[in-house]
Amino acid sequence: MIKTYEIKLPPYKRGFHLLTNEILKVIEPLPETGLLNIFLQHTSAALTINEHYDPDVRRDMDMISNHIVPEYLPFITHDIEGADDMPAHFKSSIFGVSLTIPIVRGELSLGTWQGIYLCEFRNNGGSRGLVLTLVS
Amino acid sequence: MIKTYEIKLPPYKRGFHLLTNEILKVIEPLPETGLLNIFLQHTSAALTINEHYDPDVRRDMDMISNHIVPEYLPFITHDIEGADDMPAHFKSSIFGVSLTIPIVRGELSLGTWQGIYLCEFRNNGGSRGLVLTLVS
Amino acid sequence: MIKTYEIKLPPYKRGFHLLTNEILKVIEPLPETGLLNIFLQHTSAALTINEHYDPDVRRDMDMISNHIVPEYLPFITHDIEGADDMPAHFKSSIFGVSLTIPIVRGELSLGTWQGIYLCEFRNNGGSRGLVLTLVS
Repeated sequence: MIKTYEIKLPPYKRGFHLLTNEILKVIEPLPETGLLNIFLQHTSAALTINEHYDPDVRRDMDMISNHIVPEYLPFITHDIEGADDMPAHFKSSIFGVSLTIPIVRGELSLGTWQGIYLCEFRNNGGSRGLVLTLVS
Repeated sequence: MIKTYEIKLPPYKRGFHLLTNEILKVIEPLPETGLLNIFLQHTSAALTINEHYDPDVRRDMDMISNHIVPEYLPFITHDIEGADDMPAHFKSSIFGVSLTIPIVRGELSLGTWQGIYLCEFRNNGGSRGLVLTLVS
Repeated sequence: MIKTYEIKLPPYKRGFHLLTNEILKVIEPLPETGLLNIFLQHTSAALTINEHYDPDVRRDMDMISNHIVPEYLPFITHDIEGADDMPAHFKSSIFGVSLTIPIVRGELSLGTWQGIYLCEFRNNGGSRGLVLTLVS
């Protein structure tokens, strides 16, 4: 059985944000066993799973990604929308836009410290669309 | 229901290339609702989703990935096949070889600007094999 | 049909390690056609697919990831658990914790050179939990 939910997120500011509760609100109650796929329909933001407890992790994730993929690299040509545009595309591809998470005993089978993040890489990314697919 | 398609791509030159139409040709018509998994059977190329419109994005993706994972890092030991070999392995793992994309209302539910890329990281990668799996 | 297996890996030392056989032991015999999802329930380790043949690839993967995401970046604030902690979180997100692999003709449809890696980014990561989900 496959069930699909399409949702629009409100705009988030540039950085890493927890989405776990927003997603659970839409899909609960969950089937006993299955898979959840979460798909972000954008090319300058991403989804990832990381530590939900200490907000410093989300801050440091942002700092490290800006350090590794800086703005104003001299060879970049795709910059009409601003210096944050092309680095956002690159980060989107290395973090990824599609997550698949198991469902076991009626719950998302995340580890104790795992939360679902939206990674917003644009200065003004606006609203973002997600497709949630439940396979059970 | 699960359906599998195995395809061989022609050789692509080093860089980022759009595959969306090649993939749609094989799998259409699509089920009303489902998931498509695309799996690349190689360790020195990758699949990703990014902007399909401006070819400069594909050029810049290539430039940035070569900048972040350069050839001739002094500590690399796996280099019998050439200086492009080990960086290609590393890039393959951070971009990834497996994509899962939702199908909604009989279409791949990609965002307006999203296309499927083959990332060819070798100077002479040759033909690449893909496995497409439709779950509906 | 969906089947779930939860397994605990023994502690692995920091670095990249082959897991293909450990995973096959749990899930074989496989269905004729399907998908396998492998999910790691941790935020400072990852899963990836790369070359299984030459152990130098696993060593170089480790060296390159430490080079790109070094310890002691001056702006890092999440460091109570040690200098290896925050780089491990970042690497976990760019390598990823969820793999989806096709099953064709009763076998994992990995390419000739592909193996499944555990990427252990902590100096003392301890035991790691995996959830294996078979869709057929």
